[in-house]
Amino acid sequence: MAVYTDVAADELADFLKQYDLGELLSYKGIAEGVENTNFLLHTSQGGKQASFILTLYEKRVAKNDLPFFLALMTHLAEHGINCPLPVKGRDGEALRELSGRPAAIITFLEGMWPRKPNVTHCAGVGAALAKMHLAGANFAVRRANALSVSGWRPLFDAASHRADEVQPGLRTFLAAELDHLSSGIWPTDLPEGVIHADLFNDNVFFLGDQLSGIIDFTFACNDMLAYDVAICLNAWCFEPDHSFNVTKARAFLNAYGRLRKLSEAEEAALPLLARGAAIRFLLTRLVDWLNVPPGALVKPKDPLEYVRKLRFHQSVRSVRDYGLMPSGLVA
Amino acid sequence: MAVYTDVAADELADFLKQYDLGELLSYKGIAEGVENTNFLLHTSQGGKQASFILTLYEKRVAKNDLPFFLALMTHLAEHGINCPLPVKGRDGEALRELSGRPAAIITFLEGMWPRKPNVTHCAGVGAALAKMHLAGANFAVRRANALSVSGWRPLFDAASHRADEVQPGLRTFLAAELDHLSSGIWPTDLPEGVIHADLFNDNVFFLGDQLSGIIDFTFACNDMLAYDVAICLNAWCFEPDHSFNVTKARAFLNAYGRLRKLSEAEEAALPLLARGAAIRFLLTRLVDWLNVPPGALVKPKDPLEYVRKLRFHQSVRSVRDYGLMPSGLVA
Repeated sequence: MAVYTDVAADELADFLKQYDLGELLSYKGIAEGVENTNFLLHTSQGGKQASFILTLYEKRVAKNDLPFFLALMTHLAEHGINCPLPVKGRDGEALRELSGRPAAIITFLEGMWPRKPNVTHCAGVGAALAKMHLAGANFAVRRANALSVSGWRPLFDAASHRADEVQPGLRTFLAAELDHLSSGIWPTDLPEGVIHADLFNDNVFFLGDQLSGIIDFTFACNDMLAYDVAICLNAWCFEPDHSFNVTKARAFLNAYGRLRKLSEAEEAALPLLARGAAIRFLLTRLVDWLNVPPGALVKPKDPLEYVRKLRFHQSVRSVRDYGLMPSGLVA
Repeated sequence: MAVYTDVAADELADFLKQYDLGELLSYKGIAEGVENTNFLLHTSQGGKQASFILTLYEKRVAKNDLPFFLALMTHLAEHGINCPLPVKGRDGEALRELSGRPAAIITFLEGMWPRKPNVTHCAGVGAALAKMHLAGANFAVRRANALSVSGWRPLFDAASHRADEVQPGLRTFLAAELDHLSSGIWPTDLPEGVIHADLFNDNVFFLGDQLSGIIDFTFACNDMLAYDVAICLNAWCFEPDHSFNVTKARAFLNAYGRLRKLSEAEEAALPLLARGAAIRFLLTRLVDWLNVPPGALVKPKDPLEYVRKLRFHQSVRSVRDYGLMPSGLVA
């Protein structure tokens, strides 16, 4: 939520000469994107105004992964998903450099992300996630999920000695959960594909109740599709007081299932996957919380929100607790 | 340079029902404006897209002054100045409340502020400042300049005991300058009017070399017009290494003078006014520098830049040193 790197007008004008975007009318640093610097550009082409996002990828984003993200957005956009389309320069390249940083221009999506998601929003997200999973099926480039089960232990090791500063007993709680999840029970045979892996409400745009697009593929990777579903259960189906809203979960899961039916194995694994998703966000938030750099422009998110969510998932016995009628039963 | 107050999409949609701006397509918090929260809105009216700025005035802005700023922008825009036009709601009011803060919508000006101003930019600013001074002549509302000579002593008193932390000897240097400027030599009989009082490069937009608009009237007030000229000498005519660029100053002053000729008295007072302008920004920057709140989203600007500028103005003997041929002489 900050502009880490400013760009001078003449620098930007020079940069834009590599594209066919028309005349630059304005550019504003926008307060979206925790990791990167984003500018909203207005350009004029033959009297018609258009908007784009220019992203400067700051150091937390692995440069080697950028071609994956850009190729994925291009693939999804070409397969009917409302997501930003990377704009290629005259040389056919979407990824180049500006102000010493990797940089790319993508189309601007109109729409607003819902600060207080309702049931309709959750249903929209379910449908969009399923469509994305289907559209990603024939995407050939691969990227491992660095934040899956094998990636959690290093995060825990980096933060555990100070975990009890955040909440007494947190270290023991996390250690036990991590031991459980890495005891060989984490699924390995569920359907895989491209997952968004970060489909929180600030990454989904709506116009009225209609979902108008999904953005920010910087965590996208190959993993179990049902793990993406589990992430969304965490991201969309809890209230601000951390209580679980089963109506939202049912709307989300049913909308997903109408487009891509979860298998019995996926349904059965969902509570476990949801625990994994909860500890993944808990751990990255904990590391960020304990390592706020001096002069930080971004307020870290509270890791304890995910302790509450994790405890809920620990109490779940079956998908029935998420509002879903299990596939093996007649509704 | 931050979003201090977020607004939910449905809150904003409700707010916009008070206007005739069409359908809201998107809103992005933008990283401009140190004091306030600004959103760039896209709306659609009959298929035509338009852009606006929504400002939430945060606590540092005196609420009582907002009608002055909005009325002034309206007056200037109606008198041919390219500045944002406050948008009135259906009730005829431009100023209302959102998220517990005073809020207003203004038209969006396309253009880019020059990170590295050149001589052409300085000439553009000179002409725009003169036009603004002329257009403001018949503006009836008045607002005193709280940051003129009588306002500097309280700033000094708030910061002086820690001034030497910033630079050894700074306290003595400032005390002497302040004693000099408040010894009765500050002009009182020069032509007055509405001044911008903060026309720095981030408040002036250009499309190519053409000035496309001036923004941010939150320091505008009634004062000597030549004091505004002196502020711009400080803001536009020094290089990044703090050296004075007499070519830029000449371009600025000549462009101003072609539209509004400075009187001999104004010219004679310019070095003194420039010292005043320098100490004004020096003192507010010093106070900000010494009082960065924990978790501040804005990096304070270096006060020492203005020590260098002030020393330069102290060495100036006449406007000739600013590149201007004095009026009494034949060019």
